[in-house]
Amino acid sequence: MVSKNEIRLITSLAQKKYRNKHLLFVAEGEKLVYELLQSHFKVKKIYALKDLDLDLDKDQINRVTSSELKKISNLTTPNNVLGIFEIPAFRKPIDKGLQIVLDGIKDPGNLGTIIRLCDWFGVSQLICSKDTVDCYNPKVVQATMGSLARVNITYTDIESYLFNSKLSKYMTLMDGDNIYKQSLPKEAIIVMGNEANGIRESIQKLADYQIAIPNFGMESQAESLNVAMATAVFLSEFRRK
Amino acid sequence: MVSKNEIRLITSLAQKKYRNKHLLFVAEGEKLVYELLQSHFKVKKIYALKDLDLDLDKDQINRVTSSELKKISNLTTPNNVLGIFEIPAFRKPIDKGLQIVLDGIKDPGNLGTIIRLCDWFGVSQLICSKDTVDCYNPKVVQATMGSLARVNITYTDIESYLFNSKLSKYMTLMDGDNIYKQSLPKEAIIVMGNEANGIRESIQKLADYQIAIPNFGMESQAESLNVAMATAVFLSEFRRK
Repeated sequence: MVSKNEIRLITSLAQKKYRNKHLLFVAEGEKLVYELLQSHFKVKKIYALKDLDLDLDKDQINRVTSSELKKISNLTTPNNVLGIFEIPAFRKPIDKGLQIVLDGIKDPGNLGTIIRLCDWFGVSQLICSKDTVDCYNPKVVQATMGSLARVNITYTDIESYLFNSKLSKYMTLMDGDNIYKQSLPKEAIIVMGNEANGIRESIQKLADYQIAIPNFGMESQAESLNVAMATAVFLSEFRRK
Repeated sequence: MVSKNEIRLITSLAQKKYRNKHLLFVAEGEKLVYELLQSHFKVKKIYALKDLDLDLDKDQINRVTSSELKKISNLTTPNNVLGIFEIPAFRKPIDKGLQIVLDGIKDPGNLGTIIRLCDWFGVSQLICSKDTVDCYNPKVVQATMGSLARVNITYTDIESYLFNSKLSKYMTLMDGDNIYKQSLPKEAIIVMGNEANGIRESIQKLADYQIAIPNFGMESQAESLNVAMATAVFLSEFRRK
């Protein structure tokens, strides 16, 4: 049984202002919810079509019907389980290791993919400009496939963050130096820019190195690589040694 | 002015059986349509909100209203221009160069991204199993951003294709050898598998090499990389020298 108030609360969490007000976010699907249950995220409530063998208080699990699940789900085809989790306080990033800084990424699918890439390539700190899409946006959460629990994500003023960091800053620009010809350090910050406009001028000024992926196309007319694909290639280059 | 018959024809092209019947596909947006107009694709008709300065017969351009464009568009927010193009005959791939073979890719976004990657990394031949999503699917066409015109895409029986090819076959498998430790040839076939099930057993048997991207995550719990991201990393490795 889902009350009208619960439906109102849960559907409101599709919007950032209500997520920030309630400090809650939604994750859907058995696999994702189970991964988050095993992580540092604190669960508020689980809505499920069937009885689940979970180590939770009784009042944290709510058996629902398909039509009830449909009312609270963000998915076209709701997937058995929906979980409400608490948004944790952002942890301040530590000034070491390999990090990614995002300058104004707008597409939830791109951010979700970049979070998965950080998880795969062992990047534990992802620092986002304040106008980057919210990592608790339902589309981002679903795209991360659980990686959300393993990457430390912070939203901050990236200009002052970069200014104060001691790590080398690699900015990815269309006319940067060939990434394949660089000798890359183990610890560094890779900065990726907005889908349409790239990295802001004020941020570019803080670059130690400017890098790019050369175009191998015959006709060289290819669009620039999508930001998530470029991130995959850069992370692969930094990690391959 | 768009007739009812035109609306029926154009909207039917969202389905593969009607694309195959009429040998036509839809592309939307000024940038994409202009790129395809400059390519080997033959245009059938252009529907546009405003007069366009195009080198086409008068009856190939149709001025339409916003509400007419909405009726024929596949996009939530129609974008000024919609073009109907002829589907060309598939060209037989030539047995050389760097090629990608796809075994049952289902997601239009993934195929679109892989076509863009082929364009960027100079892979001129993309060979798809017959159950791979159609490259003229509207979602694929929109995701390619014009790269569709620069990559030769064929749908065929990939088992017999691989069996008959003289090129080395690199299959990407979860437990394959570390890609970063291979000495990779300039000419080869990279085989990428279905999103959920990977490469079919019958295809795996034809492998000369099995390769994988190592997981650098601390906790090593990361999901496997999405097939498009993995393609980006493999193509980068094959091309970087």
